[in-house]
Amino acid sequence: MGEKGVRGGPGPGEDAAGPVRNHKGEQTGSLDRRAFLAGAAGVLGAGVAKGLPPFPGQGPQDASDLQDAEIVVPEDPTRVQGPTASVVGSRSPFEQPRRFLHPQLTSSRTPLQELHGTITPSDLHFERHHGGVAHIDPERYSLLIHGMVERPMVFTYEDLKRFPSVSKVYFMECSGNFPRNASEDTLPQQVCGLTSQSEWTGVPLATLFREVGILPEASWFLAEGADAAVMTRSIPMEKAWDDALIAYGQNGEALRPENGYPARLFLPGWEGNASVKWLRRIEVADAPFMTREETSRYTDPLKGGKVRQFSFVMDARSIITSPCYPQTIRPGWNEVRGIAWSGRGRIRSAEVSFDEGATWHQADLQEPILPKAHVRFRYMWHWDGSEATVLSRTTDETGYVQPTQQELIEARGVGTRYHLNPITGWRIRPDGTVVYRMEEWA
Amino acid sequence: MGEKGVRGGPGPGEDAAGPVRNHKGEQTGSLDRRAFLAGAAGVLGAGVAKGLPPFPGQGPQDASDLQDAEIVVPEDPTRVQGPTASVVGSRSPFEQPRRFLHPQLTSSRTPLQELHGTITPSDLHFERHHGGVAHIDPERYSLLIHGMVERPMVFTYEDLKRFPSVSKVYFMECSGNFPRNASEDTLPQQVCGLTSQSEWTGVPLATLFREVGILPEASWFLAEGADAAVMTRSIPMEKAWDDALIAYGQNGEALRPENGYPARLFLPGWEGNASVKWLRRIEVADAPFMTREETSRYTDPLKGGKVRQFSFVMDARSIITSPCYPQTIRPGWNEVRGIAWSGRGRIRSAEVSFDEGATWHQADLQEPILPKAHVRFRYMWHWDGSEATVLSRTTDETGYVQPTQQELIEARGVGTRYHLNPITGWRIRPDGTVVYRMEEWA
Repeated sequence: MGEKGVRGGPGPGEDAAGPVRNHKGEQTGSLDRRAFLAGAAGVLGAGVAKGLPPFPGQGPQDASDLQDAEIVVPEDPTRVQGPTASVVGSRSPFEQPRRFLHPQLTSSRTPLQELHGTITPSDLHFERHHGGVAHIDPERYSLLIHGMVERPMVFTYEDLKRFPSVSKVYFMECSGNFPRNASEDTLPQQVCGLTSQSEWTGVPLATLFREVGILPEASWFLAEGADAAVMTRSIPMEKAWDDALIAYGQNGEALRPENGYPARLFLPGWEGNASVKWLRRIEVADAPFMTREETSRYTDPLKGGKVRQFSFVMDARSIITSPCYPQTIRPGWNEVRGIAWSGRGRIRSAEVSFDEGATWHQADLQEPILPKAHVRFRYMWHWDGSEATVLSRTTDETGYVQPTQQELIEARGVGTRYHLNPITGWRIRPDGTVVYRMEEWA
Repeated sequence: MGEKGVRGGPGPGEDAAGPVRNHKGEQTGSLDRRAFLAGAAGVLGAGVAKGLPPFPGQGPQDASDLQDAEIVVPEDPTRVQGPTASVVGSRSPFEQPRRFLHPQLTSSRTPLQELHGTITPSDLHFERHHGGVAHIDPERYSLLIHGMVERPMVFTYEDLKRFPSVSKVYFMECSGNFPRNASEDTLPQQVCGLTSQSEWTGVPLATLFREVGILPEASWFLAEGADAAVMTRSIPMEKAWDDALIAYGQNGEALRPENGYPARLFLPGWEGNASVKWLRRIEVADAPFMTREETSRYTDPLKGGKVRQFSFVMDARSIITSPCYPQTIRPGWNEVRGIAWSGRGRIRSAEVSFDEGATWHQADLQEPILPKAHVRFRYMWHWDGSEATVLSRTTDETGYVQPTQQELIEARGVGTRYHLNPITGWRIRPDGTVVYRMEEWA
C-alpha cells in the first residue's frame, strides 16, 4: 500500500504507443501541470478484502496493483494509450475540490462554488461533529428502541436493511450555517457551505415504531448517538409519523463515517444536529429530555431576553454560486447560478436582483423541484461592465420569503447565532472582479 | 505524500479522552477489523494547490497533514474522541465497493448489488474505453465545431461553462451490457453493471449549434474524441435538437477522467459509445461518416444475414439487485429491490414474478420517475422457504415490454452481441442461498 506503481501500458490484447510515463512533452511549463500522482482514492478499497467471492476472469492482476499509478498528462492524448480501467476511480489531477475546515476541526464546509447541479459528492458533504468522527464496526452496531413502547427491541444493521426501504433526495443543513467573520474575500463555501444534498436511503422511522408499538401517551423521543459526545436530541413524535428516516444509504453507497455510518436519524428539512448520527438508542417518552444540545446549545436568543427552543425547521434560503468570489467575469452575457431550498417543502420561486433589491427578476428553476431539497436556479444576465451587486432571494410553497439581514435583526435582535438565512450576494467591480457583499451585523 | 500520520487527537479548544491510536480493545479478532489506514482519498487533493486563495482561519494545519491517518475502530466509540474534520472524506473501512474489471482492463462494471437508491457514486460509474483513459489539461482543451455550418468555431472549457446550463439525472448504459460467460456465481454487477446513473450538467448541444449556424442540408454530425482510439461516431441531427448535451459536470463535480473529463457528448437514453468522451471535434455533414465504431463494431447481426446499424436507443430493462448472488436470505418477508430504465422515456411499471413468469406482481416505483433514468422498484415478498425464482420485467411509457431471452433470440437470432435486455433473475434454494438463474443462449 502506498507504493507508487506504473500503469497505463497496454492490457492483454490491446495495442498501444507505449507506457504513459515515457510521454512528457506538454507545452505548459510548471511542474504542477506536468505530472501527477493519481489513483490514491482507491488504495484503501483495493487493500482490504470484504468477503466478496473472488471475481472470475480477473487474471493475474490483483486489485491493489491497479490503484497507485503515476498519471502523466501527455501533450497529445491521441498518441498515447491511456491508463486502464480501475476498481475505484479518482478525480482528474486538475480538479481538487476540498471542504473548508473550521479552525477547531469540528466542522467542514461543502465547496458550493465548485459544484454543478444539486447532488453533493459524498466525500464533500459538510461535516459537523461534537466528539470527532465515530468509526463503528457494522457487525457490532445495534439500535435500541425502548421507553413508552409495547415491545422494546434491538435492531442490527442487517435488520435495518431488511425492512421496506425508501430513497429520497433531501438537503441537510446545519443551523449554524452563517459566516462569523466575513470579509470581501469570502467564498460561497464560507457563507453557507454547511448545507449539502444527497439521495438518502433508509427505513421510515414510522415502520420501526409500528414494530415496537408506541404507547398512546408518548409525544417525544430521544435520539442518542454512539459518538464521543453521546449526542442527544429530543424530537416530537409527529416527525416520526411524517417523514423521519433511519438512513443507511447516501448517494447510492453506504453512509460516509462523518455522516453517521452505519446508520443515522434523518429528519428532512430540520436542522442538521437533530438528525443524530451513529444512532444507537431511541427512548420514547411523554416530554422532551432537555439535553445539553437543546438547552445550552442550539437555542436562539431573541429580543427582550427571550430564547427560542426546539427551532427545528430550516427556513427558506438561497445562495448565488456564480458569479462569486474569487471569479473575474467579462462584460456581456453571464449566467447567474445558485441553489435555493426550504425545510418547509418545495421552492416556489427564486429571484435575482442587480440593484440592491429594488427590482427582482424570476430565475429559472431546474426540474424536478423536490420538497426539502436544493433546487438549482439560473438567470441569464447581461452585464454592462459597471459596478453592480447580484442578490438572490427565494420563496417557498408556504409563501415564506427569504428575509433581508435587516429584517432578521428587527425580528430577532442581534444575539441570534442560529437559523440565519438572510439574502446575500456579490459585488461586481468594474474590472470584473467579484467580492462578497458584506453587511454589518447590527 | 504517503507517509502515515496520526490523527484523532483533540483540536484546539476541544477536550478528548486521548489520541485514537491508543484504543485498540475491540472484541472482534481479525486484523482486518482492528485497524485501517484511511483518508487516502484526499492525498492528491491536499498536495496540489489549485490557485484558490488560502482559506482564512485554517491555522497552522496544512491540508496535507489532515489526510493520512490511522483509523482505529474502538471497542466503545463513546469513550474515544474520533478523528477530526477533513478536506475530503473517505469511505468507512468496512465498505469497499469496487468495480468489476474486464480481463483486458478496457471496461469496469458498477457494483449494482452494493448500491441503494438510484445515484451511482462517480468513482464507481462503469467505464468503457477503446484507448485507455485520456488525461487532459482543461487549459489546453478545445472543441471545434465545423463542416456544414455558417461559422466554424472553437470553444474552450471556460467557454462551455459560460453558456446557459442544464442539470439532468440520466442513466448511461453500454450496448454490450450482458455477461458472456455467466454461471450460477454471477453478480448483478456482472449481469448488467455496464449501466450507471449520474446527475449530468452541461450545455445543450442545440445552443452551440445555434451559435455556429447549422446549414439546412445538414442531417448528421461526427463526434470525435481526444483519446488514443480517436473514438468517432455519427449522430443524427435530430438528437442535437432534442436533448443532447455537452456535459462537463457529473454528480455535482467535474466529470471524472474515465467519463470524459473535461467535456463529453451526452446522448440521453442512447448506447454509451455514441456519447463520445474527451470530445474535441464535431463535424456537421449530410450523411453518416461510416466510422469503424459503426461498421465493424456496435452493429447487431440479425437473422438471415442482415445487420442492424445505428441502433442507438437502449431498450427498456430491469435487474433485481436484492435478493441476488451471493446473498443468503431467510424465510419470511424480504424486500425484492431492483432498478428499471428505458432509453425511450419514463418507466411505466416494474413487475416481479416468483413462478418463472406465469404470474406477475406490480412493484412500487420510487418517485420521482424521471425520463431516461434508473428507477428504483421494490416489492415485499413473503418467502415460504421452498425453491423459487425471482424475475423482473419492466414496461416503459411507449408500451414496450422487456422481452424474455427466448423472445429476443426468436426476433434476432443467436448472433446478436449488443442491445441484449432479456428478463433475468435469481434462483432461491431451500437453504436460502441465491444463485444466478442461467439460461442457455440458443
